[in-house]
Amino acid sequence: MLTFIYLVAIAAEAMSGALAAGRRNMDVFGVAVIAFVTALGGGTVRDVILGNFPIGWTQHPGYIALVISAGLLTVLVAPHMHRLKRLFLALDAMGLVAFSLIGCDIALRMNYALPVVIMAGMITGIFGGVLRDVLCNQMPVVFQRELYASVSLVVCCLFLGLRALDVNHELTTVLSFVVGIAMRMLALRFGWKLPTFSYQQRWE
Amino acid sequence: MLTFIYLVAIAAEAMSGALAAGRRNMDVFGVAVIAFVTALGGGTVRDVILGNFPIGWTQHPGYIALVISAGLLTVLVAPHMHRLKRLFLALDAMGLVAFSLIGCDIALRMNYALPVVIMAGMITGIFGGVLRDVLCNQMPVVFQRELYASVSLVVCCLFLGLRALDVNHELTTVLSFVVGIAMRMLALRFGWKLPTFSYQQRWE
Amino acid sequence: MLTFIYLVAIAAEAMSGALAAGRRNMDVFGVAVIAFVTALGGGTVRDVILGNFPIGWTQHPGYIALVISAGLLTVLVAPHMHRLKRLFLALDAMGLVAFSLIGCDIALRMNYALPVVIMAGMITGIFGGVLRDVLCNQMPVVFQRELYASVSLVVCCLFLGLRALDVNHELTTVLSFVVGIAMRMLALRFGWKLPTFSYQQRWE
Repeated sequence: MLTFIYLVAIAAEAMSGALAAGRRNMDVFGVAVIAFVTALGGGTVRDVILGNFPIGWTQHPGYIALVISAGLLTVLVAPHMHRLKRLFLALDAMGLVAFSLIGCDIALRMNYALPVVIMAGMITGIFGGVLRDVLCNQMPVVFQRELYASVSLVVCCLFLGLRALDVNHELTTVLSFVVGIAMRMLALRFGWKLPTFSYQQRWE
Repeated sequence: MLTFIYLVAIAAEAMSGALAAGRRNMDVFGVAVIAFVTALGGGTVRDVILGNFPIGWTQHPGYIALVISAGLLTVLVAPHMHRLKRLFLALDAMGLVAFSLIGCDIALRMNYALPVVIMAGMITGIFGGVLRDVLCNQMPVVFQRELYASVSLVVCCLFLGLRALDVNHELTTVLSFVVGIAMRMLALRFGWKLPTFSYQQRWE
Repeated sequence: MLTFIYLVAIAAEAMSGALAAGRRNMDVFGVAVIAFVTALGGGTVRDVILGNFPIGWTQHPGYIALVISAGLLTVLVAPHMHRLKRLFLALDAMGLVAFSLIGCDIALRMNYALPVVIMAGMITGIFGGVLRDVLCNQMPVVFQRELYASVSLVVCCLFLGLRALDVNHELTTVLSFVVGIAMRMLALRFGWKLPTFSYQQRWE
């Protein structure tokens, strides 16, 4: 079940990457690369930082095919995607939660300290999008707009909290998804944002 | 022989990096860093992703001296480089093929699955240029202009195809270079590009 | 003693990251991420490139708390920071030297060749700032302004030179700090820069 959600999630992230590439007028090769990086880049950075070799996707070549196909398919269906906006944002939120949980889980198994476990969950959740934006030469949107990275943080803490209370794994997972997706969708609907830090003095 | 081609290739990539740094008015230190990253960054990313430690260039300190020298030399010869345009683009194409073959070879020896082998070849071939562009704060050109990443893909597939057919290694290597360099030079001469994906709707 | 300097240094780097995030109007989450990456990103890249797992900060969760706190604290004290400009720049210079020495030391212990040791020192010293600038979508300032990367290079060479001459470790460390901080502060005061390479021809 979580595997199925994961596959849907990486496909949704790949589509988000493809749209970003389209906004930059990339060629179809660029679309494939950005789709790949958006979907699997967060997990790659996490595995490298945790020293978790071999890296996840290298052991599942099917994932490569899935994300590249999803990216290229996006080129075809793009003119109709705004009609699926809600579904797409919901899948993206689902991906954020799934990635965060998987990141925590892997770091836990490697016996890292809890702050590192939370960082691993958040890196998995948000770094695909950060790399997508860096490669598209724009500032990472996750640091500016509606709650996104915060959702990942809340999900990671909730997951670890329920785990510490010995709540069973299925319930923990379900609760994490419900809270995470609800938080993200509410943030989008009501424009919830974190306070912004503006500093314009130039003295350096 | 392949070692000699590799040395020429990393020097050519270093020069391409130095020119990009010059377009951004970097100081000579920046030139050296961008030259290094352009020439050896693709192989570094490949080795990290494959978990292939120690990373290649750390075992060949001479490579560090070569690429930094090539980068700094470029500062001196830059006013005359446009006269060598054809030679330079040919060396760059040669580098693209050499890097792709080396990337495939290393992943094959580590027994990765074929899709990962192809990715390793392409990462080696194009990621130096991607990192160069990211550090110069511009969108990676390999995703927008004449066939480049596609050349790497074709070379990797040709290499693996001939290998599967038990063609001997020398012939495979020569054919890969001939096809790859020809494809790249023809793309440059005739402006061959992949179709572009433009998506300007803003609904997120 | 060096540990204390290191803690001050990562806090100073985190503050520099937070100010850069503020110049880009990031939210407080972005501030925390940029602070973290600026302070600990250079060491992370060094550890990954050297294959030095587990990565330093994953074994010291306290560092995570320190740099994130320093980053968020910066949001509060930012209106007053220009009054502390000199102190802040001195701490930043101290951090540059401390990071460079630590990077050299780690690579030496792993028995890498001397050019790799110097690269490790410089990566530790400057890559946090490079990653900060990449994530803030601007060209890395270390490649354009007053001597900064050069200070790291001089410090690394001085450290290795004194070590080769069997000068004792304490004296070597003190001398490296004195020379490095003096060089950086003089460069800032007198506007010392490396020559710049400008190349505007477009023939590619």
